[in-house]
Amino acid sequence: MKLPVSTEWLLHCAASLAQLDAGATASAAQLAAYYDLPAAYLAKQLQSLVRAGVLTATTGPRGGFRLGRPASEITLLQIVEAVDGGSSPYECREIRQQGRGALPAAQCREPCILAAKMAEAHEAWRRTLAATSLADIIATLPASTPRRTRARLTGRP
Amino acid sequence: MKLPVSTEWLLHCAASLAQLDAGATASAAQLAAYYDLPAAYLAKQLQSLVRAGVLTATTGPRGGFRLGRPASEITLLQIVEAVDGGSSPYECREIRQQGRGALPAAQCREPCILAAKMAEAHEAWRRTLAATSLADIIATLPASTPRRTRARLTGRP
Ligand code: FES
Ligand code: FES
Repeated sequence: MKLPVSTEWLLHCAASLAQLDAGATASAAQLAAYYDLPAAYLAKQLQSLVRAGVLTATTGPRGGFRLGRPASEITLLQIVEAVDGGSSPYECREIRQQGRGALPAAQCREPCILAAKMAEAHEAWRRTLAATSLADIIATLPASTPRRTRARLTGRP
Repeated sequence: MKLPVSTEWLLHCAASLAQLDAGATASAAQLAAYYDLPAAYLAKQLQSLVRAGVLTATTGPRGGFRLGRPASEITLLQIVEAVDGGSSPYECREIRQQGRGALPAAQCREPCILAAKMAEAHEAWRRTLAATSLADIIATLPASTPRRTRARLTGRP
């Protein structure tokens, strides 16, 4: 199982936008230059964060992207699931109900124990990512980082 | 991110083999008929469990597959990683070190906090699956199940 390569891009872009001053924005081109990423593809991916409410897109000459809500209310899980969708990597096709060993439907009202364990593992993964917000990430950075980020990303310190 | 469809097949095949009497085996054809799965593709996938030591393959007229070690020593994680490999779904390509925002290498001796959080989530997933053995799974089945499994899988009750 693999997450899209753009997962890393969007985690980093969101973390960078979390370091801008209130109301400031950065364009897809600025974010692409900041991380040396393909601008058109990145722009498309940023839209998935807009749809998820993680980012807001503003238009006009100074338009661009900014956080759609406070950094403390944006979790890593929201970003990852905006990129990859929220479905579990494990798909149960109810093979217990097919073939020579097929169980009668009456015995399959509860989820299969194997499917239940796989779902439990996915929930543990989700819980870990839901426990960290962008504000938590920013709090771990050296104090000088946000100023540097703003200057290199937007040209305005 | 998606696990291969065969993950469900192999979890179930291993759980079924865990219900056989000591020394008994089932062939790939028997397992395929039991779950109505494509026999040739299933046989190939079963080999990945053999390579991981989860199963042992015996040859000869009564040959087939059986567990490679006690059911209590085979975890769901071992089966899933035999099918899918053990690598994390998240790949960090160190984008913090590229582009206009590139951090100097000296500031990148520690793993990036975002990569570290993604690794933590993968470890939580792995820990959940490592905490359940095939013996735990079998212990949740109704008492009459193993006899039925043996009869339908191998024709010998
Ligand atoms: S029937 Fe799907 S995991 Fe058991
Ligand atoms: S550099 Fe890869 S996750 Fe931060």
